[in-house]
Amino acid sequence: MRIEIGEKVLRENAKVAAELRAMLEERGILALNLIGSPGSGKTAILERTLAGLRNTPLRVAVLTGDIQTDTDAQRLSRYGFPARQITTAGACHLDARMVMRAMDGWDLDQIDLLLIENVGNLVCPTSYDLGEEAKIVVLSVTEGEEKPLKYPGIFFRSALMLLSKCDLLPYVPFDPDLAIRNAKSIHPEIEVVRLSAMTGEGFGAWMDWLRARTKIASHCP
Amino acid sequence: MRIEIGEKVLRENAKVAAELRAMLEERGILALNLIGSPGSGKTAILERTLAGLRNTPLRVAVLTGDIQTDTDAQRLSRYGFPARQITTAGACHLDARMVMRAMDGWDLDQIDLLLIENVGNLVCPTSYDLGEEAKIVVLSVTEGEEKPLKYPGIFFRSALMLLSKCDLLPYVPFDPDLAIRNAKSIHPEIEVVRLSAMTGEGFGAWMDWLRARTKIASHCP
Repeated sequence: MRIEIGEKVLRENAKVAAELRAMLEERGILALNLIGSPGSGKTAILERTLAGLRNTPLRVAVLTGDIQTDTDAQRLSRYGFPARQITTAGACHLDARMVMRAMDGWDLDQIDLLLIENVGNLVCPTSYDLGEEAKIVVLSVTEGEEKPLKYPGIFFRSALMLLSKCDLLPYVPFDPDLAIRNAKSIHPEIEVVRLSAMTGEGFGAWMDWLRARTKIASHCP
Repeated sequence: MRIEIGEKVLRENAKVAAELRAMLEERGILALNLIGSPGSGKTAILERTLAGLRNTPLRVAVLTGDIQTDTDAQRLSRYGFPARQITTAGACHLDARMVMRAMDGWDLDQIDLLLIENVGNLVCPTSYDLGEEAKIVVLSVTEGEEKPLKYPGIFFRSALMLLSKCDLLPYVPFDPDLAIRNAKSIHPEIEVVRLSAMTGEGFGAWMDWLRARTKIASHCP
């Protein structure tokens, strides 16, 4: 019974996600869906990313999901780009309809890159397509190297793993090479960027990854 | 539709949880349900707790939930207490039936304390009663002070917050007093223990909390 309904919900979501994807592709908008545990550093990464994109031609918009509060949208709206909160009121993940609704009124022709920060959760958001071009999993070095093995779904579905909070490596018993090996054992093609939103380490590589995928980059080689 | 089914599932779970609770209470077993993000330090806390209880009269048993892998049960079985893995095969939380099944064959008269480590997830496990006497939320200092406001459900339902990884406080922008104020704004009666499974800081207070609640403690004042 539960599985049937789960599948019905997912089928319905897939339909909306397909519409959303067509809409985004038509406008050449690159949409990315960031997924990670609570406290893995998603918002801090987005803050530093937006700060870095401020004086570039790239026009960004941000959606950020949380169960309660709009503090993340407040944090993210300081950088001059449109940022909206999606409050899920209890739901443990975003779905395509929430994203569709949250974009209401935005002029999509003014957006090149849509960054979607999912609810902090390594499990449930994995199953919901948001019409994104790629999922990005954020794993912090405080979380343990075995996480890709314990939560394989999201590592299997992500194009990129951001290994965050690398500034804390000297203080935690965490072997980044082992974490990366574990991620690649689940998904051999996953790309990896090690970074720290505190020090800025690794943001060059992350920004390059982003720029290489937006239409701006492909139009101006 | 989703909500109706959700309620049906929760009603069914509540029934099994009530049976489980009666069974545990009859044997004087204290059951605790530990909930926290992936990487918040639940398993490390349990490891140090089991090591500390090894040469005491308290007879402990451990159940540990994960989506995949049984590495946690392996880690936890080194301390001479029975430890079993519950692999949820995709489900983002434990439920009462999984706990009931996992205890099959254990001699309950030989157990004083049942420690249940839930799947790493601050959202979904909150709604599922496992027949426990108390929920304990584990929040690590690497996660951010605002987490109680963003994930209020679990802080509202927990008797105790373990503020973990306090050894990292010098290296992270985290104000523990603010985190505790936030938790108490959601749940004024929540108790708090600050600890570190790395250094052992705070384990005296945590062990006292545990012992004060077991039948051993109440029988031997």
